[in-house]
Amino acid sequence: MGEASAVEPRGTTRAMAPLQLSLVTLGVADLRRAVTFYEALGLVRRVKEATGAAFFDAGGVVLSLYPRVELAADAGVVAGRPGAFGGIALACNRASRSEVDTTLIRAVAAGGRALRPAQPTFWGGYSGYVADPDGHPWEIAHNPGFPFDAAGRIVLPD
Amino acid sequence: MGEASAVEPRGTTRAMAPLQLSLVTLGVADLRRAVTFYEALGLVRRVKEATGAAFFDAGGVVLSLYPRVELAADAGVVAGRPGAFGGIALACNRASRSEVDTTLIRAVAAGGRALRPAQPTFWGGYSGYVADPDGHPWEIAHNPGFPFDAAGRIVLPD
Repeated sequence: MGEASAVEPRGTTRAMAPLQLSLVTLGVADLRRAVTFYEALGLVRRVKEATGAAFFDAGGVVLSLYPRVELAADAGVVAGRPGAFGGIALACNRASRSEVDTTLIRAVAAGGRALRPAQPTFWGGYSGYVADPDGHPWEIAHNPGFPFDAAGRIVLPD
Repeated sequence: MGEASAVEPRGTTRAMAPLQLSLVTLGVADLRRAVTFYEALGLVRRVKEATGAAFFDAGGVVLSLYPRVELAADAGVVAGRPGAFGGIALACNRASRSEVDTTLIRAVAAGGRALRPAQPTFWGGYSGYVADPDGHPWEIAHNPGFPFDAAGRIVLPD
Protein backbone atom coordinates (compact mmCIF):
# COMPACT_ATOMS: atom_id res chain seq x y z
CA MET A 1 0.00 0.00 0.00
CA GLY A 2 2.98 2.34 -0.45
CA GLU A 3 3.53 2.67 3.29
CA ALA A 4 7.28 2.26 3.13
CA SER A 5 8.58 3.91 -0.02
CA ALA A 6 9.79 7.25 1.37
CA VAL A 7 13.18 8.61 0.42
CA GLU A 8 15.20 10.23 3.17
CA PRO A 9 16.86 13.17 1.44
CA ARG A 10 18.66 14.71 4.37
CA GLY A 11 18.97 14.06 8.09
CA THR A 12 15.70 12.98 9.59
CA THR A 13 13.49 14.85 7.13
CA ARG A 14 11.18 12.43 5.43
CA ALA A 15 10.32 13.35 1.85
CA MET A 16 6.68 14.08 1.24
CA ALA A 17 4.80 14.49 -1.98
CA PRO A 18 3.63 18.08 -2.48
CA LEU A 19 0.13 18.90 -1.42
CA GLN A 20 -2.22 17.98 -4.24
CA LEU A 21 -5.78 19.08 -4.83
CA SER A 22 -7.43 15.73 -5.45
CA LEU A 23 -11.06 16.51 -4.77
CA VAL A 24 -13.30 19.48 -4.05
CA THR A 25 -16.51 18.90 -2.12
CA LEU A 26 -19.40 21.31 -2.37
CA GLY A 27 -21.87 21.28 0.48
CA VAL A 28 -25.40 21.26 -0.87
CA ALA A 29 -28.93 21.60 0.49
CA ASP A 30 -30.55 19.26 -2.02
CA LEU A 31 -28.35 16.57 -3.54
CA ARG A 32 -30.73 15.80 -6.40
CA ARG A 33 -31.00 19.45 -7.41
CA ALA A 34 -27.24 19.87 -7.35
CA VAL A 35 -26.65 16.67 -9.35
CA THR A 36 -29.16 17.83 -11.97
CA PHE A 37 -27.34 21.15 -12.30
CA TYR A 38 -23.89 19.63 -12.80
CA GLU A 39 -25.19 16.93 -15.15
CA ALA A 40 -26.77 19.68 -17.26
CA LEU A 41 -23.28 21.13 -17.63
CA GLY A 42 -21.95 17.87 -19.01
CA LEU A 43 -20.52 16.15 -15.96
CA VAL A 44 -21.12 12.41 -15.66
CA ARG A 45 -21.77 10.85 -12.28
CA ARG A 46 -19.40 8.11 -11.18
CA VAL A 47 -19.20 5.88 -8.07
CA LYS A 48 -22.91 5.35 -8.51
CA GLU A 49 -23.31 3.12 -5.48
CA ALA A 50 -22.63 6.17 -3.31
CA THR A 51 -26.18 7.38 -2.93
CA GLY A 52 -25.64 9.98 -0.21
CA ALA A 53 -23.00 11.84 -2.19
CA ALA A 54 -22.18 12.43 -5.85
CA PHE A 55 -18.81 12.21 -7.55
CA PHE A 56 -17.81 13.60 -10.95
CA ASP A 57 -14.50 13.67 -12.80
CA ALA A 58 -14.09 17.40 -13.44
CA GLY A 59 -10.90 17.13 -15.48
CA GLY A 60 -8.47 15.15 -13.36
CA VAL A 61 -9.79 16.60 -10.14
CA VAL A 62 -12.89 15.13 -8.52
CA LEU A 63 -15.90 17.34 -7.88
CA SER A 64 -18.10 15.90 -5.19
CA LEU A 65 -21.45 16.95 -3.78
CA TYR A 66 -22.42 16.21 -0.21
CA PRO A 67 -25.06 17.55 2.18
CA ARG A 68 -23.69 20.74 3.64
CA VAL A 69 -24.57 19.95 7.24
CA GLU A 70 -22.89 16.55 7.00
CA LEU A 71 -19.83 18.09 5.35
CA ALA A 72 -19.47 20.59 8.19
CA ALA A 73 -19.83 17.83 10.77
CA ASP A 74 -17.23 15.74 8.97
CA ALA A 75 -14.80 18.66 8.93
CA GLY A 76 -15.46 19.53 12.55
CA VAL A 77 -16.69 23.05 11.79
CA VAL A 78 -19.90 25.01 12.31
CA ALA A 79 -22.11 24.67 9.24
CA GLY A 80 -22.78 28.40 8.94
CA ARG A 81 -25.21 30.15 6.67
CA PRO A 82 -25.83 28.53 3.27
CA GLY A 83 -25.43 30.86 0.33
CA ALA A 84 -22.98 33.22 2.01
CA PHE A 85 -19.64 33.64 0.25
CA GLY A 86 -17.12 31.36 1.89
CA GLY A 87 -14.01 32.86 0.38
CA ILE A 88 -13.51 30.21 -2.30
CA ALA A 89 -14.22 30.57 -6.00
CA LEU A 90 -14.11 27.72 -8.49
CA ALA A 91 -13.11 28.36 -12.08
CA CYS A 92 -13.64 26.69 -15.42
CA ASN A 93 -11.28 27.96 -18.09
CA ARG A 94 -12.45 27.90 -21.68
CA ALA A 95 -10.66 28.08 -25.01
CA SER A 96 -12.46 31.18 -26.27
CA ARG A 97 -14.67 34.08 -25.25
CA SER A 98 -17.60 32.57 -27.07
CA GLU A 99 -17.26 29.38 -25.02
CA VAL A 100 -17.31 31.50 -21.88
CA ASP A 101 -20.56 33.09 -23.00
CA THR A 102 -22.07 29.73 -23.92
CA THR A 103 -21.10 28.15 -20.61
CA LEU A 104 -22.57 31.02 -18.60
CA ILE A 105 -25.82 30.86 -20.55
CA ARG A 106 -26.05 27.11 -20.03
CA ALA A 107 -25.34 27.44 -16.32
CA VAL A 108 -28.10 29.97 -15.83
CA ALA A 109 -30.46 27.86 -17.92
CA ALA A 110 -29.63 24.90 -15.68
CA GLY A 111 -30.63 26.75 -12.51
CA GLY A 112 -27.55 28.82 -11.73
CA ARG A 113 -27.69 32.46 -10.77
CA ALA A 114 -25.71 35.07 -12.72
CA LEU A 115 -23.35 36.95 -10.41
CA ARG A 116 -21.31 39.11 -12.79
CA PRO A 117 -21.70 39.34 -16.56
CA ALA A 118 -18.77 38.28 -18.69
CA GLN A 119 -16.44 41.15 -19.53
CA PRO A 120 -12.81 41.77 -20.45
CA THR A 121 -10.54 41.53 -17.41
CA PHE A 122 -7.53 43.54 -16.27
CA TRP A 123 -5.35 40.45 -16.80
CA GLY A 124 -6.04 40.38 -20.50
CA GLY A 125 -8.75 37.77 -20.52
CA TYR A 126 -12.51 37.55 -20.36
CA SER A 127 -14.67 36.16 -17.58
CA GLY A 128 -17.99 36.14 -15.80
CA TYR A 129 -19.36 34.51 -12.66
CA VAL A 130 -22.34 32.29 -12.01
CA ALA A 131 -23.44 30.68 -8.74
CA ASP A 132 -24.59 27.08 -8.60
CA PRO A 133 -27.96 26.35 -6.93
CA ASP A 134 -26.27 26.40 -3.52
CA GLY A 135 -24.53 29.71 -4.15
CA HIS A 136 -21.05 28.34 -4.82
CA PRO A 137 -19.41 30.78 -7.23
CA TRP A 138 -17.92 29.63 -10.52
CA GLU A 139 -15.83 31.92 -12.65
CA ILE A 140 -16.05 31.00 -16.32
CA ALA A 141 -12.94 32.41 -17.92
CA HIS A 142 -10.86 32.65 -21.02
CA ASN A 143 -7.23 33.43 -20.20
CA PRO A 144 -4.93 33.54 -23.24
CA GLY A 145 -1.93 33.55 -20.87
CA PHE A 146 -2.86 30.16 -19.37
CA PRO A 147 -2.59 27.57 -22.17
CA PHE A 148 -4.06 24.07 -21.93
CA ASP A 149 -2.45 20.67 -22.25
CA ALA A 150 -4.02 17.94 -24.40
CA ALA A 151 -6.42 17.05 -21.57
CA GLY A 152 -7.63 20.63 -21.28
CA ARG A 153 -5.79 21.31 -18.03
CA ILE A 154 -4.05 24.61 -17.47
CA VAL A 155 -0.28 24.61 -17.92
CA LEU A 156 0.99 27.50 -15.81
CA PRO A 157 3.83 29.59 -17.20
CA ASP A 158 6.77 30.32 -14.89
CA MET B 1 -8.23 30.99 -30.86
CA GLY B 2 -10.59 28.08 -31.40
CA GLU B 3 -13.68 30.26 -31.74
CA ALA B 4 -15.14 28.24 -34.58
CA SER B 5 -14.52 24.55 -33.98
CA ALA B 6 -17.86 23.49 -32.52
CA VAL B 7 -19.56 20.37 -33.74
CA GLU B 8 -23.31 20.53 -34.22
CA PRO B 9 -24.50 17.10 -33.09
CA ARG B 10 -28.23 17.55 -33.50
CA GLY B 11 -30.56 20.33 -34.53
CA THR B 12 -29.52 23.67 -33.15
CA THR B 13 -27.79 22.27 -30.08
CA ARG B 14 -24.19 23.36 -30.06
CA ALA B 15 -21.80 20.89 -28.48
CA MET B 16 -20.03 22.15 -25.42
CA ALA B 17 -17.15 20.66 -23.50
CA PRO B 18 -18.21 19.46 -20.05
CA LEU B 19 -17.68 21.81 -17.17
CA GLN B 20 -14.11 21.41 -15.98
CA LEU B 21 -12.59 22.49 -12.69
CA SER B 22 -9.52 24.33 -13.95
CA LEU B 23 -8.64 26.48 -10.98
CA VAL B 24 -9.65 27.01 -7.36
CA THR B 25 -9.09 30.41 -5.80
CA LEU B 26 -8.82 30.80 -2.06
CA GLY B 27 -9.54 34.26 -0.70
CA VAL B 28 -6.88 35.21 1.84
CA ALA B 29 -6.28 37.99 4.34
CA ASP B 30 -2.49 38.03 4.00
CA LEU B 31 -1.07 36.83 0.70
CA ARG B 32 2.46 36.38 2.05
CA ARG B 33 1.28 34.28 4.98
CA ALA B 34 -0.82 32.08 2.72
CA VAL B 35 2.00 31.63 0.19
CA THR B 36 4.37 30.63 2.99
CA PHE B 37 1.89 28.02 4.21
CA TYR B 38 1.38 26.39 0.82
CA GLU B 39 5.09 26.50 -0.05
CA ALA B 40 5.80 24.70 3.24
CA LEU B 41 3.54 21.92 1.95
CA GLY B 42 5.61 21.54 -1.18
CA LEU B 43 3.78 23.68 -3.72
CA VAL B 44 5.92 25.78 -6.05
CA ARG B 45 4.79 29.23 -7.07
CA ARG B 46 4.40 29.88 -10.79
CA VAL B 47 3.42 32.95 -12.85
CA LYS B 48 5.81 34.88 -10.67
CA GLU B 49 5.16 38.21 -12.32
CA ALA B 50 1.68 38.16 -10.79
CA THR B 51 2.50 39.89 -7.52
CA GLY B 52 -1.04 40.49 -6.28
CA ALA B 53 -1.99 36.83 -6.52
CA ALA B 54 -0.23 33.48 -6.29
CA PHE B 55 -0.61 30.48 -8.57
CA PHE B 56 0.45 26.89 -7.90
CA ASP B 57 0.06 23.70 -9.92
CA ALA B 58 -1.74 21.48 -7.43
CA GLY B 59 -1.76 18.36 -9.60
CA GLY B 60 -3.31 19.39 -12.89
CA VAL B 61 -5.65 21.86 -11.26
CA VAL B 62 -4.44 25.34 -10.38
CA LEU B 63 -4.62 26.53 -6.79
CA SER B 64 -4.56 30.30 -6.60
CA LEU B 65 -4.49 32.71 -3.68
CA TYR B 66 -6.02 36.15 -3.93
CA PRO B 67 -7.10 38.76 -1.38
CA ARG B 68 -10.52 37.75 -0.13
CA VAL B 69 -12.07 41.20 -0.47
CA GLU B 70 -10.88 41.50 -4.07
CA LEU B 71 -12.10 38.00 -4.87
CA ALA B 72 -15.56 38.82 -3.56
CA ALA B 73 -15.62 42.04 -5.57
CA ASP B 74 -14.53 40.17 -8.69
CA ALA B 75 -17.28 37.61 -8.22
CA GLY B 76 -19.91 40.25 -7.51
CA VAL B 77 -20.72 38.92 -4.04
CA VAL B 78 -20.58 40.24 -0.48
CA ALA B 79 -17.23 39.35 1.09
CA GLY B 80 -18.75 37.97 4.28
CA ARG B 81 -16.97 36.92 7.42
CA PRO B 82 -13.49 35.45 7.00
CA GLY B 83 -12.94 32.14 8.71
CA ALA B 84 -16.57 31.02 8.59
CA PHE B 85 -17.24 27.74 6.81
CA GLY B 86 -18.34 28.50 3.27
CA GLY B 87 -19.64 25.08 2.41
CA ILE B 88 -16.61 23.95 0.40
CA ALA B 89 -13.94 21.50 1.51
CA LEU B 90 -10.76 20.80 -0.40
CA ALA B 91 -9.15 17.39 -0.25
CA CYS B 92 -5.72 15.93 -0.79
CA ASN B 93 -5.75 12.18 -1.21
CA ARG B 94 -2.70 10.23 -0.10
CA ALA B 95 -1.40 6.76 -0.87
CA SER B 96 -1.38 5.55 2.73
CA ARG B 97 -2.58 6.29 6.24
CA SER B 98 0.93 7.20 7.33
CA GLU B 99 1.11 9.82 4.58
CA VAL B 100 -2.17 11.26 5.85
CA ASP B 101 -0.68 11.58 9.32
CA THR B 102 2.51 13.14 7.99
CA THR B 103 0.65 15.65 5.86
CA LEU B 104 -1.57 16.73 8.74
CA ILE B 105 1.42 17.17 11.04
CA ARG B 106 3.23 19.22 8.40
CA ALA B 107 0.20 21.39 7.80
CA VAL B 108 -0.18 22.22 11.47
CA ALA B 109 3.56 22.87 11.76
CA ALA B 110 3.24 25.26 8.81
CA GLY B 111 0.57 27.33 10.53
CA GLY B 112 -2.60 25.37 9.85
CA ARG B 113 -5.19 24.61 12.49
CA ALA B 114 -6.25 21.06 13.25
CA LEU B 115 -10.00 20.66 12.78
CA ARG B 116 -10.55 16.93 13.17
CA PRO B 117 -7.93 14.29 13.99
CA ALA B 118 -7.34 11.57 11.45
CA GLN B 119 -9.46 8.51 12.03
CA PRO B 120 -10.96 5.60 10.10
CA THR B 121 -14.01 6.66 8.08
CA PHE B 122 -17.34 5.00 7.39
CA TRP B 123 -16.37 4.72 3.71
CA GLY B 124 -13.48 2.44 4.50
CA GLY B 125 -10.70 4.98 4.44
CA TYR B 126 -8.87 7.25 6.82
CA SER B 127 -8.93 11.03 7.00
CA GLY B 128 -8.51 14.14 9.07
CA TYR B 129 -9.08 17.84 8.51
CA VAL B 130 -6.86 20.87 8.87
CA ALA B 131 -7.66 24.51 8.13
CA ASP B 132 -5.20 26.72 6.28
CA PRO B 133 -4.30 30.09 7.89
CA ASP B 134 -7.48 31.63 6.44
CA GLY B 135 -9.70 28.86 7.73
CA HIS B 136 -10.20 27.02 4.42
CA PRO B 137 -10.70 23.36 5.32
CA TRP B 138 -8.56 20.63 3.80
CA GLU B 139 -9.38 16.99 4.23
CA ILE B 140 -6.27 14.82 4.06
CA ALA B 141 -7.49 11.37 3.13
CA HIS B 142 -6.53 7.87 2.20
CA ASN B 143 -9.27 6.17 0.21
CA PRO B 144 -8.41 2.64 -0.98
CA GLY B 145 -11.48 2.75 -3.23
CA PHE B 146 -10.19 5.74 -5.21
CA PRO B 147 -7.01 4.62 -6.99
CA PHE B 148 -4.53 7.04 -8.57
CA ASP B 149 -3.24 7.35 -12.10
CA ALA B 150 0.48 7.77 -12.80
CA ALA B 151 0.22 11.50 -12.10
CA GLY B 152 -1.34 10.90 -8.71
CA ARG B 153 -4.82 11.98 -9.78
CA ILE B 154 -7.87 10.06 -8.62
CA VAL B 155 -9.40 7.66 -11.13
CA LEU B 156 -13.03 7.32 -10.11
CA PRO B 157 -14.62 3.88 -10.40
CA ASP B 158 -18.00 3.66 -12.08
